[in-house]
Amino acid sequence: MLLFFLRVINYKKNNYYYNKIEGTIIFLSNFAPMIEDKNTPKTSLSELGEFGLIEHLTKNFEINQKSTVRGIGDDAAVLDFRDEKCIVTTDLLVEGVHFDLAYMPLKHLGYKAVMVNLSDVYAMNATASQITISIAVSNRFPLEAIEELYEGIYAAAKLYNIDVVGGDTTSSTKGLLISVTAIGHANEHVIVYRDGAKENDLLVVSGDLGAAYLGLQVLNRENEVFKVNPNAQPDLGPYSYLVERQLKPEARKDIKELLAELEVLPTSMIDISDGLSSEVMHLCTQSNVGVNLYEEKIPIDPVVISTCEEFNLNSTTVALNGGEDYELLFTIKQEDFPKIKANPNLTVIGHMLDKKSGMALVTRANERIQLKAQGWNPIKE
Amino acid sequence: MLLFFLRVINYKKNNYYYNKIEGTIIFLSNFAPMIEDKNTPKTSLSELGEFGLIEHLTKNFEINQKSTVRGIGDDAAVLDFRDEKCIVTTDLLVEGVHFDLAYMPLKHLGYKAVMVNLSDVYAMNATASQITISIAVSNRFPLEAIEELYEGIYAAAKLYNIDVVGGDTTSSTKGLLISVTAIGHANEHVIVYRDGAKENDLLVVSGDLGAAYLGLQVLNRENEVFKVNPNAQPDLGPYSYLVERQLKPEARKDIKELLAELEVLPTSMIDISDGLSSEVMHLCTQSNVGVNLYEEKIPIDPVVISTCEEFNLNSTTVALNGGEDYELLFTIKQEDFPKIKANPNLTVIGHMLDKKSGMALVTRANERIQLKAQGWNPIKE
Repeated sequence: MLLFFLRVINYKKNNYYYNKIEGTIIFLSNFAPMIEDKNTPKTSLSELGEFGLIEHLTKNFEINQKSTVRGIGDDAAVLDFRDEKCIVTTDLLVEGVHFDLAYMPLKHLGYKAVMVNLSDVYAMNATASQITISIAVSNRFPLEAIEELYEGIYAAAKLYNIDVVGGDTTSSTKGLLISVTAIGHANEHVIVYRDGAKENDLLVVSGDLGAAYLGLQVLNRENEVFKVNPNAQPDLGPYSYLVERQLKPEARKDIKELLAELEVLPTSMIDISDGLSSEVMHLCTQSNVGVNLYEEKIPIDPVVISTCEEFNLNSTTVALNGGEDYELLFTIKQEDFPKIKANPNLTVIGHMLDKKSGMALVTRANERIQLKAQGWNPIKE
Repeated sequence: MLLFFLRVINYKKNNYYYNKIEGTIIFLSNFAPMIEDKNTPKTSLSELGEFGLIEHLTKNFEINQKSTVRGIGDDAAVLDFRDEKCIVTTDLLVEGVHFDLAYMPLKHLGYKAVMVNLSDVYAMNATASQITISIAVSNRFPLEAIEELYEGIYAAAKLYNIDVVGGDTTSSTKGLLISVTAIGHANEHVIVYRDGAKENDLLVVSGDLGAAYLGLQVLNRENEVFKVNPNAQPDLGPYSYLVERQLKPEARKDIKELLAELEVLPTSMIDISDGLSSEVMHLCTQSNVGVNLYEEKIPIDPVVISTCEEFNLNSTTVALNGGEDYELLFTIKQEDFPKIKANPNLTVIGHMLDKKSGMALVTRANERIQLKAQGWNPIKE
């Protein structure tokens, strides 16, 4: 029994390449994280031991970055950023909290774990160059499952030109946990923080919003159907963009390059992991400014709109609070507007006010509603 | 009910300051990670939410390192190592695998989680300067328990002059997991790798070995006694050095400084986390050399010897395979021997041979036995 029959197709949208997932998902009522083809060997992790496992999993990782002096295999990695500043960020992904292996294929999970972290480096307007990967995994996972996870990590590292320079592999008493630290570098003059937004700056977002959250809703719904009728296999064709945004998000490496090309240096920047609303509030709070965020400007894919209708959800609410979009949210000076206005990757969605004007959503009916952060919270939920 | 009544006393041994733990342990048959004084408020983590929790836990962390340009509070930390190389290492600690909260107080756990990682930076002959801390924690932990954990992290950061520059805090479905990434820096000419040992070099170790493993055996034994008779409370007085090495290890920050002072640059170095035997083999394998390791030279504390007798264990086996000592193991050129021979912190325990001579322990009876790595393995156990 295969977890997924996925066909990944590259396509271009808004001048940006996406991978499209086509195919049919087979849900697993009783999850076993393995390919149940009887010819597939199932190797117990304990046969390899820690060093054997690390060596086995990391032997394919290549060192491509000039800044990597020494990678895996010593007490620590040695990196050389010369005149540039070093950027460090870290994120944990926990089974049952951040992902459900019933519909998250391990390869996609590995890929996503890397993206989540690279996104934070790109949100500093920096170049990501290295990651460390630590996993804690219960013995119910055979080696082949962990290999799948690492295939996703490897694919991400290759596509984004990242060296894997360290990590730790250990057992857990329950489930799977992935901890990634991403490291990057940037000239100090181009690093963009969250606290630089000024009154009258324009608020800009890359890509479109809400799709990743809706993708999760689609997967959840189909999983419920499957639990009742295990023979029902959903055709996710109409939702492929949504499912792909949930299962295989891409970090916006291209935006740094695009902004450099357009000669625009944002005044503040953040990535959208917890929902647009929450991130806008972070920028405002840390920059001591207010905002008018215009509902009608929020970029939403037509599939998000039609699927919201199907689920009886408000698409603005989904875009504001959905999370996991991994788009970049930033502010620019008004004078930079002509440089970005023709770009299909970027949408101006608001403008910054003085602090006492507060943080508000301006609705299509021209009402001004106070922004609330209702995004996903891994502690509260 | 208190987890521990610990009194921490500073004392000096071999010119190196240790903290000594004195007192009586109260084991918990039914573990609840909290102080059960009814006056102690128990705050649920969900009341705070992720951002509230992070802010609450990190508000006391100070930035002291010049190399920290930006710490907690943005998408990523920004560090500046100027002409020096950047050192990165990461480790996971998992409840039920690496620690047992029945006898590991949370404050000690936080402290130890930092030490384990700093030790890897020092093993590169580098200066540790920053850490990121990620924790996944189940809701059975009240805020006060996580505060205790962070007190230990804070104490370690303060004593070792480390900035906490990032992290992630999330819930887990079971237990507690801590992921630390330590970052440091060093001039490229002083960085010491595992692969630089040469034939005829001397093998040197700091401190003494085996105590941390025995400390765990003592705690395990007393915990078994406690399970049978919950009124029995052990007096750990005679074992305080062992228990302290297990519960509050110190990373050998001082050895880098000492070696610089003595003008000795090791040819290879590693820290002892999995046991002397395993680490000697790593140095030999990566350096393509063999070794004679002399049993009679291995530094063992008298309390380790007497407690080994009590437990009917061989003290050499404990020193070779015990692990968690966090001492530094390194090789030096023979010509540097006069510089280190008088130092009570350092013991020459062997010398390096050509590769085909193999890796051997030379026993007190002058037998040459092939070295085996039987150290702790978090995947196999």
